[in-house]
Amino acid sequence: MTNINTAGWHRKHLLDIESLTAEEINVVHDTTRAFKAVGERAIKKVPALRGKTVINLFIEPSTRTRISFELAAMRLTADVINFSTEASSLKKGETLKDTARNLEALNADIIIIRHSATGAPHFLSRFLRGSVINAGDGAHEHPTQALLDTFTIREKKGRIAGLNVTILGDILYSRVARSNIHALLKLGANVTLCGPSTLVPKVFEQMGCKVTYNVDEAIAEADVINLLRIQHERQRKTMFPSIGEYTNLFGLTKARFEKTKPDALIMHPGPINRGVEINSEIADCERSVVLEQVTNGLAVRMAVLFLVNGGKGPQEIAG
Amino acid sequence: MTNINTAGWHRKHLLDIESLTAEEINVVHDTTRAFKAVGERAIKKVPALRGKTVINLFIEPSTRTRISFELAAMRLTADVINFSTEASSLKKGETLKDTARNLEALNADIIIIRHSATGAPHFLSRFLRGSVINAGDGAHEHPTQALLDTFTIREKKGRIAGLNVTILGDILYSRVARSNIHALLKLGANVTLCGPSTLVPKVFEQMGCKVTYNVDEAIAEADVINLLRIQHERQRKTMFPSIGEYTNLFGLTKARFEKTKPDALIMHPGPINRGVEINSEIADCERSVVLEQVTNGLAVRMAVLFLVNGGKGPQEIAG
Amino acid sequence: MTNINTAGWHRKHLLDIESLTAEEINVVHDTTRAFKAVGERAIKKVPALRGKTVINLFIEPSTRTRISFELAAMRLTADVINFSTEASSLKKGETLKDTARNLEALNADIIIIRHSATGAPHFLSRFLRGSVINAGDGAHEHPTQALLDTFTIREKKGRIAGLNVTILGDILYSRVARSNIHALLKLGANVTLCGPSTLVPKVFEQMGCKVTYNVDEAIAEADVINLLRIQHERQRKTMFPSIGEYTNLFGLTKARFEKTKPDALIMHPGPINRGVEINSEIADCERSVVLEQVTNGLAVRMAVLFLVNGGKGPQEIAG
Repeated sequence: MTNINTAGWHRKHLLDIESLTAEEINVVHDTTRAFKAVGERAIKKVPALRGKTVINLFIEPSTRTRISFELAAMRLTADVINFSTEASSLKKGETLKDTARNLEALNADIIIIRHSATGAPHFLSRFLRGSVINAGDGAHEHPTQALLDTFTIREKKGRIAGLNVTILGDILYSRVARSNIHALLKLGANVTLCGPSTLVPKVFEQMGCKVTYNVDEAIAEADVINLLRIQHERQRKTMFPSIGEYTNLFGLTKARFEKTKPDALIMHPGPINRGVEINSEIADCERSVVLEQVTNGLAVRMAVLFLVNGGKGPQEIAG
Repeated sequence: MTNINTAGWHRKHLLDIESLTAEEINVVHDTTRAFKAVGERAIKKVPALRGKTVINLFIEPSTRTRISFELAAMRLTADVINFSTEASSLKKGETLKDTARNLEALNADIIIIRHSATGAPHFLSRFLRGSVINAGDGAHEHPTQALLDTFTIREKKGRIAGLNVTILGDILYSRVARSNIHALLKLGANVTLCGPSTLVPKVFEQMGCKVTYNVDEAIAEADVINLLRIQHERQRKTMFPSIGEYTNLFGLTKARFEKTKPDALIMHPGPINRGVEINSEIADCERSVVLEQVTNGLAVRMAVLFLVNGGKGPQEIAG
Repeated sequence: MTNINTAGWHRKHLLDIESLTAEEINVVHDTTRAFKAVGERAIKKVPALRGKTVINLFIEPSTRTRISFELAAMRLTADVINFSTEASSLKKGETLKDTARNLEALNADIIIIRHSATGAPHFLSRFLRGSVINAGDGAHEHPTQALLDTFTIREKKGRIAGLNVTILGDILYSRVARSNIHALLKLGANVTLCGPSTLVPKVFEQMGCKVTYNVDEAIAEADVINLLRIQHERQRKTMFPSIGEYTNLFGLTKARFEKTKPDALIMHPGPINRGVEINSEIADCERSVVLEQVTNGLAVRMAVLFLVNGGKGPQEIAG
């Protein structure tokens, strides 16, 4: 295994990207590289978290992120318990705090939480003795998504500083966008945001992003185009055009694709709506790294689980 | 690991508390102590049930108890399968007997069953070759809950014999109450039951309990107060006061708490309805052992899985 | 462990029975025998798939088959992830192809798929790098069921060639029937099909089966009677008699049972409708191998997982 240096990481939790330093993000990336190699072995498993208990506390439904964390924990040889809303006693009126403390009383080492309320992970981190990982809190942050997206950019482009990255879609309500903006700016990228004006408020300029409603301008100089998913199922009618209209105005159509830089990366957090925010052929083209993002997401989550648990170095991740 | 002596245990199943002897309960407690220590190690895992198959057969929904058993089995290195109502073929009209025999045909070593029908675990134990553990059968028994409650009392108070234990709430329909009454009486405690008269019939006096409808009297001399959960979601309107009325009449309010003995333990099987059967601050006070009960529940379930599987001694539970 | 020879198996996928040779079926049977012995050990686990990732992709609900595959993978020490429709992003409009490619991007080694569409596993096998196992595709095939049924016949009767096997029920819409017909004919059995004429078209004669609507004739000379499950829950009213009528016309009643050969095996893929397609006592009689089928199903699935993963011999299945 690649020699890794985790010396720059001292956190017990991963709550957001906003409070991380660029150096901390780099430590995650370096550790991810080592764990990605584990996924390519015949025996994709290391004993780094053997005998540790990891709990997936998903109060908001999610299959992909939950599975990615579950498998990450399994590959670290941890014991993983899934606790999701459907069957949970939250329905019976128990508070989130009580649920979390009850899970911790099972000697949980790490609690991964997805919740519809902004700040839920921060709240838990204040009273839990174990580690807390944010797997998405409301429209606030989704830190492991940003870590995997920036890892993927770095892997493909060799660097992040100085790159032009365009995020396209419903920025206002997107935790993926918010976490990506923080990570990209910390790592020195130039970030452009584009989408319907109701969903891309000018206030994002104060963070250091460029905001434009002209999609042609947004993609012309982009080295990376990150397309957000249009949420069919919870369409906000008053703020949002129809699906067809969205595709016409902001979708990555073939015509628009032809105007991008010849080496611009196409990213998407998944699941893709083929023919809506992205043309189906473009989603599968050579410059699309959508599946690479999934592979990297698993490695990033192994790295994060390893680091928040106090993982210090390569001797712990021997096969 | 503490030296444990399991010589007094010869049962293949754990079906109820009623048929256990005090000595058998003591063996479970002694074994629990050893397994609780496992939960405090860095590597919370022993190979005692390696290669064994444990099936969680939950015909009545439950998250907490299921997770507690699931994690207990994982920490014993067993393979665990969850089989719950939602997705089950019971919907297709298969009988419980057929379901259980089909699961056993997978060479299941232990089947943990929760079922809304009294006696379901006893029924299974008559024809299954494997071990059966009752995780709650209707309003009848919930033996691991009583084992963890009495373990917790013993741990905190140093003994059980001679203690005054008050159980407060809907006794009539509570399997937690019924199992606790059996365990406490066998171990020599004085048991007082209190709650709405429709839900605490005088017939419990024949078991050897004291029955009172005067909550002040019930808690005045108690060394332990065990509060049952008010079942919001299946309120029996004809037998039950309103929630507010219940709190006024039987809730552990601050005023009532002040009249308890200064070292009286406060217990609750969870999940708590803050502000209903217990004042929120009291639930979190130093004398509340609600979370300790959760921790002990996991250790009790490891002990029970270990014992019904024929576990004999400490050499099998080396790390 | 019995010495096994897997030299005749070169497939990466198990998509159907139709394309297998008799020799390949025999290799599965021989390997199954070795794995069945594992299920009878104190430690029912071998490290053959340690560090491999197996994904149960169940787009059509199923508990039994899913659990059988899940436990099979666990006993091979693989990491198993369940991905079922209920919580999946398929609801959000993602295509099956995208779902499968996303799961593969997690470095899945084997994807087990159940799907209501005929050919779904074949479709996946065309673009996935990992192995695909068909766990039932529409009314097309259910290959592991046929492998376990023929294994059970061979185990009980010592051979398959020359035996008279009758399949009774809704043949037209049954993937169990279709896979069994292919396997039995390849292995040299004489196959008779019987059931309501609307559900047992004469066209099956072209496959080499005998078709009859006379149940007495169908069972008189049978060495094996395989009863299909009547699908209460999705009764096709126009093609199907009432339940009571079905039992009268085609159910294995006591009267009919008495006219069978004294050593005829009674089989059923489960779950049984007692009193509908089979009399309750007959389901439990000595000649019924219904539970043996479940036990063998687990062993067959271990064998298939082992073989598609490139398993070559007994040294890999040491305890």
